[in-house]
Amino acid sequence: MAEAHDELPLGRLEAFSDAVFAIAITLIVLELGVSARGEKDLLAAILHQWPSYLAFVTSFMTIGVIWLQHSGITGALRAADVTLYRINLVVLLLVSFLPFPTKLVGEFIGERHQERVAVVFYGLTLLALALALTGFVRYAAERHRLVKDEIEAHVVEAALTHQPSFALYGIGIVTGLVLPTVGVVFYLLTSLYLGIPGRTLHRVLRRR
Amino acid sequence: MAEAHDELPLGRLEAFSDAVFAIAITLIVLELGVSARGEKDLLAAILHQWPSYLAFVTSFMTIGVIWLQHSGITGALRAADVTLYRINLVVLLLVSFLPFPTKLVGEFIGERHQERVAVVFYGLTLLALALALTGFVRYAAERHRLVKDEIEAHVVEAALTHQPSFALYGIGIVTGLVLPTVGVVFYLLTSLYLGIPGRTLHRVLRRR
Amino acid sequence: MAEAHDELPLGRLEAFSDAVFAIAITLIVLELGVSARGEKDLLAAILHQWPSYLAFVTSFMTIGVIWLQHSGITGALRAADVTLYRINLVVLLLVSFLPFPTKLVGEFIGERHQERVAVVFYGLTLLALALALTGFVRYAAERHRLVKDEIEAHVVEAALTHQPSFALYGIGIVTGLVLPTVGVVFYLLTSLYLGIPGRTLHRVLRRR
Amino acid sequence: MAEAHDELPLGRLEAFSDAVFAIAITLIVLELGVSARGEKDLLAAILHQWPSYLAFVTSFMTIGVIWLQHSGITGALRAADVTLYRINLVVLLLVSFLPFPTKLVGEFIGERHQERVAVVFYGLTLLALALALTGFVRYAAERHRLVKDEIEAHVVEAALTHQPSFALYGIGIVTGLVLPTVGVVFYLLTSLYLGIPGRTLHRVLRRR
Repeated sequence: MAEAHDELPLGRLEAFSDAVFAIAITLIVLELGVSARGEKDLLAAILHQWPSYLAFVTSFMTIGVIWLQHSGITGALRAADVTLYRINLVVLLLVSFLPFPTKLVGEFIGERHQERVAVVFYGLTLLALALALTGFVRYAAERHRLVKDEIEAHVVEAALTHQPSFALYGIGIVTGLVLPTVGVVFYLLTSLYLGIPGRTLHRVLRRR
Repeated sequence: MAEAHDELPLGRLEAFSDAVFAIAITLIVLELGVSARGEKDLLAAILHQWPSYLAFVTSFMTIGVIWLQHSGITGALRAADVTLYRINLVVLLLVSFLPFPTKLVGEFIGERHQERVAVVFYGLTLLALALALTGFVRYAAERHRLVKDEIEAHVVEAALTHQPSFALYGIGIVTGLVLPTVGVVFYLLTSLYLGIPGRTLHRVLRRR
Repeated sequence: MAEAHDELPLGRLEAFSDAVFAIAITLIVLELGVSARGEKDLLAAILHQWPSYLAFVTSFMTIGVIWLQHSGITGALRAADVTLYRINLVVLLLVSFLPFPTKLVGEFIGERHQERVAVVFYGLTLLALALALTGFVRYAAERHRLVKDEIEAHVVEAALTHQPSFALYGIGIVTGLVLPTVGVVFYLLTSLYLGIPGRTLHRVLRRR
Repeated sequence: MAEAHDELPLGRLEAFSDAVFAIAITLIVLELGVSARGEKDLLAAILHQWPSYLAFVTSFMTIGVIWLQHSGITGALRAADVTLYRINLVVLLLVSFLPFPTKLVGEFIGERHQERVAVVFYGLTLLALALALTGFVRYAAERHRLVKDEIEAHVVEAALTHQPSFALYGIGIVTGLVLPTVGVVFYLLTSLYLGIPGRTLHRVLRRR
């Protein structure tokens, strides 16, 4: 197929993605809000918001680590193609959607039944994001013509092996069904833990 | 006219446009909102929001494909001029306006009469955007001095030929008058379909 | 003074400014909103919003033209210094403030007395912005060591001569006191008219 | 440790950070809002908002100066590593959080007791931000392999010495407990004052 030989510049893909990551990561805080002037005890109101802070930090760290991994893989490429542009759009669609379930978690933690729905919905979004990012990384790594010449083949293969994040998010979702708050903490720990494979990915892909 | 010979750098036009595209695409989700804490059944409330998700995905994909086409055409240029900067501002004006009709569709689908107005208003905005982008592409392709030397003339002419999106949006608007939800689905399919000419445009313009 | 000899890179000043311009220009639309689901006649409600659209287009075009002028002057520079960074921060402060008076105009046009306050407040913000941008352009053009060598001296001097925008905004503000809507239209025409000196500035500064 | 020898590109760290800074700085204004159409006397309502303007300018200037310092230090580097990427994420986390306490200050100044909580909470966020930025600067300056060769050792050491901002924020917080508004003014003056060491940092690091 002729299309497969087209190459597109990486620069704008990176710039556009960086902007979407940055905006989504910053918009989350907009949902934080102590409910206005009638508040009698502001300190209690601020402390009472802890589920929102937890959801804020979790989403921030998740997007931050995805950005780390995204910049790691694109740093190993020398060009992009249209399919990569499209998979990237799916990743960005989910990133820009993330503030919505984040807000739901912040609002509904503490309300029986509701909180389970919110936490599972949040977890499914995170899982979909992990899937889309894996698709992005794998597609990029498998197209040898897109990878810089100095990146060795076995290194790319290493990047394609197991991503344990699916299992981790699955455990988080199941946990969230029983203990919603613990489920969110589990999502946060997953994103922090994923920072390490992210680091490894960086190291592996950048070693010459 | 002396102005016609001025050249402006492409870099800032691309950077500014990327940022506006990225912000508009990310802001859409802000309009999503289950109406707060009083909610009895969160799952039902989340599912009840499907018109908002449909509008969200449609606007995301529309802006995404426009970004693909925009980066395709600027990738074929070696410089810009003031007129291109101005046409670009009109494109961006409409892109940044898009979250407003998107919100209306999400809110009013399901409310008789209101939904027709929302869907037609949305379709007219999409049509105006398609017109502005076509103006951008044509102006750029017709100014031979702005196009990179290695892009051949017949390739540029190909880029100038039929854009079927006007007809498609027209059909969507008329459909929306009768069956509003089907109209929105039609807009979504149009944007996905336009991804293919976008791809072709990329391939055509980048082939050496 | 030692500081005067320091040079800072232009790249990040441009990138940061582009982002602030792009965000401010896109945020304005967030203020647009037909007041929710209770609406009986959506078409009337959409049309009733015309002051918001007028304010939206005016602010969009004002920021767009400022961005044109900003990229015109930085395109003529080869470096920045700390003072230029600081004046730039003042320009950006006013740009990021602009969505607030824009919202007021959209909300209060049509309400006697209130609308005069809103339009004058808006005009004063636009005037302050014109002043800050003029300060930015003049400082940059007067620091010969910051200007690229190929830009000739008399060209820079031309850039420093009269900016009629102060007078135009002054007329707009006075008009707004009597006829608020006409005042806003005047601001819009001023920004469109300023696109022409902006173009001239570009042409003058970029001619070799 | 093998990781310590990995280098990551500075470009995307700068681009991503610039975007987050720019978005946070622009989002603050979204919180400004005269409470809608029922307003009897708009001029009084606008003037009554002064605590919001004070908080807006303070947060804008704080982020602006942090951006100055951030671009100063990254301008002295030739590469980044994973740890620097991570410290940077903490800085950005706090930057993107800042609009929330800013909004609280704007809302609660003038309400006894509440205002103390808001001002102290705001001050603690600013202090945490100063700590994170110091961590960022020190880590970068201490990694000699990350610093450009032409930056001399004693210059880097100078960059590592006293940051008086902790003491200043501490004084501001204590003042805010007694006189909340004075505390916020103190934060603003601190950020303006820090513009000078920022400048010095620039000068020191960029001198060859």
